[in-house]
Order: sequence, then C-alpha cells, then structure tokens
Amino acid sequence: MWIQSIRRCIRSHSCSGGTRGVCSPAADGSDRLRVLLQLCADRFYISPGESNAELFRRGWSCSYGPLGVELRGNLLRQWWHSVTGSKERVFGLSTPSFSAEQRAAGARLVEAEHVQQILDRSDLNRDQLIQELRGLLLSSPSVRRSLLQGALENFVSSLEMVNRKLPFGLAEMGPCFQPSDGSGCFAEVNQTSLVWFCSPRTSSQWLDHWARQRLKWWRKFALSPSDFSSVEVPENELQETASRGMKILFNFPWGPESLETLWCRGDAELLQTYKGVRSKLQSRDGRKSVPHVVSVSGNMDRGVLAFLSNSLQQLRREDGKKRLQQRKVLKLHPVLAPVKVALDIGKGATVELRQVCEGLLQEFLEAKISAWPGYLETLPSSLEHLNAKYDEMGVLFSVVINENTLESGLLQVRSRDTTIRETMHISEIRHFLSKYITAADKL
Amino acid sequence: MWIQSIRRCIRSHSCSGGTRGVCSPAADGSDRLRVLLQLCADRFYISPGESNAELFRRGWSCSYGPLGVELRGNLLRQWWHSVTGSKERVFGLSTPSFSAEQRAAGARLVEAEHVQQILDRSDLNRDQLIQELRGLLLSSPSVRRSLLQGALENFVSSLEMVNRKLPFGLAEMGPCFQPSDGSGCFAEVNQTSLVWFCSPRTSSQWLDHWARQRLKWWRKFALSPSDFSSVEVPENELQETASRGMKILFNFPWGPESLETLWCRGDAELLQTYKGVRSKLQSRDGRKSVPHVVSVSGNMDRGVLAFLSNSLQQLRREDGKKRLQQRKVLKLHPVLAPVKVALDIGKGATVELRQVCEGLLQEFLEAKISAWPGYLETLPSSLEHLNAKYDEMGVLFSVVINENTLESGLLQVRSRDTTIRETMHISEIRHFLSKYITAADKL
Repeated sequence: MWIQSIRRCIRSHSCSGGTRGVCSPAADGSDRLRVLLQLCADRFYISPGESNAELFRRGWSCSYGPLGVELRGNLLRQWWHSVTGSKERVFGLSTPSFSAEQRAAGARLVEAEHVQQILDRSDLNRDQLIQELRGLLLSSPSVRRSLLQGALENFVSSLEMVNRKLPFGLAEMGPCFQPSDGSGCFAEVNQTSLVWFCSPRTSSQWLDHWARQRLKWWRKFALSPSDFSSVEVPENELQETASRGMKILFNFPWGPESLETLWCRGDAELLQTYKGVRSKLQSRDGRKSVPHVVSVSGNMDRGVLAFLSNSLQQLRREDGKKRLQQRKVLKLHPVLAPVKVALDIGKGATVELRQVCEGLLQEFLEAKISAWPGYLETLPSSLEHLNAKYDEMGVLFSVVINENTLESGLLQVRSRDTTIRETMHISEIRHFLSKYITAADKL
Repeated sequence: MWIQSIRRCIRSHSCSGGTRGVCSPAADGSDRLRVLLQLCADRFYISPGESNAELFRRGWSCSYGPLGVELRGNLLRQWWHSVTGSKERVFGLSTPSFSAEQRAAGARLVEAEHVQQILDRSDLNRDQLIQELRGLLLSSPSVRRSLLQGALENFVSSLEMVNRKLPFGLAEMGPCFQPSDGSGCFAEVNQTSLVWFCSPRTSSQWLDHWARQRLKWWRKFALSPSDFSSVEVPENELQETASRGMKILFNFPWGPESLETLWCRGDAELLQTYKGVRSKLQSRDGRKSVPHVVSVSGNMDRGVLAFLSNSLQQLRREDGKKRLQQRKVLKLHPVLAPVKVALDIGKGATVELRQVCEGLLQEFLEAKISAWPGYLETLPSSLEHLNAKYDEMGVLFSVVINENTLESGLLQVRSRDTTIRETMHISEIRHFLSKYITAADKL
C-alpha cells in the first residue's frame, strides 16, 4: 500500500511537484541519468529497485548501500568540519525530529492504535468523533520540515554562552520531512543548516560571505567546478520574511537544481519564537536591536547525487582486440571517495596470500583508510574486469598481492585516475595512501 | 500543547513506563543525577530546561548543545568504525525513517491538512468519514521503531554483493520512533544496529561473539569499566521470535539500564519479509537452509548519558584559604571528549595575544583537534574559575598564552587529569595533542 502510494506520488510528481519537477529532459541528459542510476545500483551506492532510484533522483533520502552511506557520511563530515571549524564562531546543535511548533499544516506523528481507538468508539456521534480527532491532531507532535526552528529555540541559551556577543551561528544536520502535495506521501531529506545571528546592518554582507564560502566548499570537491554556481534569488521569488536570498546550484544533466539556499530572514521569526520579548534577544553591542537571522540550508542527499553526477566520466577507447569499449569512472574527490583502496589476490598460494591481505586490511582500518576486501570474493575475475568494477565504484587505488609479494614484499598498485600500475613495497603502501589523501584534503 | 503532552507523558511514566521506569531512586543516586543534569545543562552538553533534561535522563533524543553533539558524534563515529571496520564482513546501510512495513500498530506520519480536509467534508456521513480515515491511516507511511526491517529488506541485494557467502552483517545508525503508551507522545532514540546473517548452527556462537565485542567496546572508553556489564536475558523474558538474548547494561546511579540488546532471532522475520520465498534467501554453503539473524541494537542517546555519568568525578579538597571545595571533573575518554583543548589569554597586550590564539586555533582545526576559543570571552575570569569550568566541560588540556609567549614562545599547558601545569614551546603543542589522543585511541 505504501509502495503504491510512493508510486502514485512519483507519477503525480513527474511533471510538476517536489522541490523541482523534471520535464522531458534532453535525450542526452536522460541517457546520462539512466547510466548514472544503473551504475549507482550496480556498484552499491544505492539499493536496487525502481522506486528507490526515483527517490534518489529527486534528492530525497533513499535506501543507500555501503558505498552510498560512506559517501554521504564523508560529505556530512566535511560540511560539519568546514562550518563548525571555520574562523567564525559556529556551535553545533542537535534537536529532536519532532518539535513543539504550533502549525496547522505539516506532517504529524500519530499513533495508529490511538486513532483506531477513537474510530472504534460507538458512543461518539459524528460531531463528537470529529472533535476528538481534531484534539488528537492538535496534540500530536509535528515533524520538522527544516532545522531552522530548532536553532531559533536555542538562540537565547546560546547567546548566554557567547556572553551576549554577536555574530555567531548554530549548525545542525539531520533528517527533515516535507509533505509533498496532499497525496499523503512525504519527502525525507538529510538537511544541513547553519543559522547565523548578526546585527541588522551586517546581515546582507554575511549573506554574501556565507554564499562565497559555501560555493567554495562545493567546488573544492568537484571534478568540474563550473557545474556548481551561485545565483541571487529574484525579488519576486523571495520568501515572505526574506529580504534577500541566494542559491547554490548544481547543473544536473537534466538541468540546474538547488543544493543549498541562503536567506536574509530579518528578525520576525526570532521575535515570534520568543513571543516578542525583545529584552531576551538583545546583544551587548550597545544598540538595543534584535539580531537578524541569515539561514543557510542544504540538501545533502541531493549533494551526494550532485557529486556522483559530477564525477562520472564516460570514456570510449579501444581494447587490446581493437574493439570499442566504454570505460566508466567515478572520479570522486579522494576525501569523498567511499573506498580508498581495494585488496585483491593474484596468482599464488591462496591461503598465504589471504593472510597477507588480512594483515594489510587491518593496517588500513587502524589508519582509518577505508578498504574493500576484494580478496574475499569467491568468483575468480580477470584483472580487466576487476579494474572496470573498481573504476565504477570510484575506488582510488587497487592493490594486487601475488606470489611475488610473498617472496619480495613487492605489490602492484593501480591508480584510478592515471590507470598506471606502480610497484611498491608492502611496507610503504599505508603511508603512501595516507599522504595522498591528506594532500588532496589540503589542496 | 505539545509541551503539555510531553509533561503529561513524563508524569504518567514516572513509575512504570518508557523503556525502564525509575522508582524512588536512592537519595545518593538522585543527588548524583541532579548534579549530573545540572552540569550537562550548565556546560553546553544539553540545552537548558526541565523537560529537555527529562528526555535526556530517559535516554531519548533531546536538544543537545555544542558539547553534547560532539560527544554523541564521537561515540557514533567510534561505533561505526568498530563495526564496519571489524574483522568480520560488515557493510554500512542507510534506509529512510519511514518504511513500507504493514503493521496495525505504531507511529504513522500524516499530513495535518489532509486529515483536516476529510474532517471538513460535510458530504460524508459518520460511517463514510470513518472509512475515509481508515483508508488514510492505512496508506500513511509508518515510522520505523527500529532499524531491523531496513536491514532485512536489503538482505537479498547484499547477499548478491558477497557472492551468496555467509556470514556477513549490515550496519546502520539513525533515529527511530517509539510510541510510548497511548498517551500520544513518542520517544525518539538514536539507534545503532548491526544485523548479522549466519548459518543456523552458528547463530548462538555469533551472539556470544558480538556480545563480547560490544562489551569490550563500551569498556574501552569507560573510566570505571565495571559499571558496564553483560547479562543473558532469562528465558521467560525472550521476545516471541528469539531463542536467546543478551543485554549490555550500564549501572546508572539509579540502577542498571540497557544500552544494547542482542537477539538470536532465527529466520522467521527474514522469511516473512520475503513472503516465504526460501530460494531467494539461500546461501551457497551447500545446505539449503535459510540464514539465521542475530541483531545487535543500541541506544546511543543513553550511551551518551552513560559515559557522562561514568566519567563524572566529584572530589572534595581544601582551597588555598582552607575552605572545603568540591571539584567536579568530567573525565571523558580522550577520544570521546568533545573539546580536546581550550585556548585562553593571560596578562599582556590583548591584540597580539589574540592573534597568537587565532593562529593556534587554525592549526588545531586543520589537524582536526577540536578546540574551544576561550580567548573570545569578553568577561575576565580568574584562572581558578577557568580551570573549574574546563574540568566540568571535560576539556583535556587548557592552554594559556601570555606576554611570556610573545617573548619566548613558551606557554602553559594544564592537564585535566593530572591538574599539572607544564611549560611547552608553542611549536610543540599540536604534535603533543595529536600524539596524546592517538595513543589513547590505541590503548
């Protein structure tokens, strides 16, 4: 029933709804999309299935496989680090998914049994029944659409923490739930949020500052940085309370979609949250003004899709037998790549080679280098097939251990990006990988 | 209204409900609890407020402040690393918070407007109204209580990934929602889940294996490891489908509560998820049996509370003027401590000292050492007060930069655990901290 409702919802959306509908994408774009989604399902980024791929395509939380989880985790960690570790004063925060907001609209959490009990009561007439259900709805927790309210509710206690000195910010990440269009289905999105509190006269400058910072961040990890851009929101598209807005866009094969949105929101929502008690909200900067709010909110599920789309290279080349082949490589940034190194065995005594692999795997795990234990595969595979597979997984390096390694300690390391195979001593590989990843992080 | 319902719910629970009720704790335990909750609110672990402290005390997701977020983040990261980086084959997974489970009971996500529209329809008689609402309820997504179902639904595609070879596991972490007792309120809990698939004859051994591993993990970060223990669940308390169960307990001041629960679940739920199609589920181990499931599920919100409770030391000592003073120290494990180093300025030219602090802060952030910018505080504070504050925050080291530093490059580093103040050159401090934390991680 729920699957049906997702399907219904996907159909009803296909030309209009959601955060942004996709209408008749160009043939090239739709081909690229098909290849990308197939690769993501084949290579453990997302779980297989059409509905799941469609959730993913919309930039909603879907069912992620092991590589997708790591990629999103890496992305969120980088975001968190860049925001809470910036030169500006930003503090982390985490609030429950359902909140005390009193709104007529939005998603509510109800207990099925509780509703059933009311529906089963034969002593209630029609009006009483409606009254009971309205009461239930009103007292049900509302599920958050965004992380903004949580930050606003924590403003006063945070202001004390910084000795009432502006500016400062509150950062949070977590799932948010958006009802889509009355069809009863919801979009779950992993949001990131920075809520920045500053003096009214500086808010527009801060909007520009954060838009620059955010764009720089997205581009840092991009293969084609020009696919990421920022635009000012036109005045006629501004939200009710906002005086200015900016968006960070990614140019998907089917057109641009927004990854992050920044608003100059003024003080209205802050005043509303504290019921207009201005004295609670004032900072010690001499003026008696209430701080203005700049919000920066991102969709990291769509961020995952953007980086996957951005990093997929399709290269045509001839193989050894002069047949035209297509090579697909996910050239994810070394910091984001979910698997840094794959370990496989070549010719030689299997038991001994496996032991070497296990020792190496342990070494990688201790150094927090995520490794793929290819040597556990029971089906033998040609080196060519292995390389093609690892390129599609976006694995940075693949290592083959063979009988040579047992004798001389030497192994073969192949790079995803250069396709060059290097010989290296087994004692050097961990250090080599650590250095490579650290260097890429600092670029 | 929602706050009232939380309060009502808290009252109704105080002697019976929730995951475990707390009845008339011993005076000593309740005193320790009061001190702990006050400290957590004062020192930015949780947001202030009585209802929030009560959510926290129950081991539910509450509103966390900057230190609480980091602590929980560190804990989750360690868990993820220990499980997906273990010697066993465990793959990460992430599934949406609402699922396709068809259950009569449980929490449902409904759109308030949607319900209102039905209640407003004057053309429906009582029976039609009830029918419409039942339909709505049935088609509403149900919000997950645990992460088990998501893993079961991903079993078949994961089995392909491992070439149909057992054993292997699927790990996930994320929020789960548990309706409490029909009062309309819900507990949100950040769960961790490892679902382990193995041959039927080995499942009991694997239960023991994972129970040992998990207990070892909790104790690794404990100040008093003996507060953590494991117990076998008595036969008469076993869940319907389970043949055995174990719990990892923490001995809170008010009594033991369970942090993690392990069950031998058999194959019933797996068969149910795949509608009894055994052929889909069989591994290639020769026998035609369906794998058995061992589940390991933890509550990391309660985990945070456990480590805070475990690490709080209250020491009485005389101050310089022979007055009896109480020193409170959060001796969190170096890996878990949310702030590794605090930076403050002593006597000297403020502008220059701040510049030195900013340079040092940047250096720490680049090395991913979380630092507290105490030098930004505008209110002057005595060194004694500062130390007391940082001890309560669980800050590992505090550094004071003064006019001496400008001349000689030397600074004062105070250790939380020894209270000893050491002189160190400014160029050595980053390396010293990195080495200290890495060493503690490897113990």
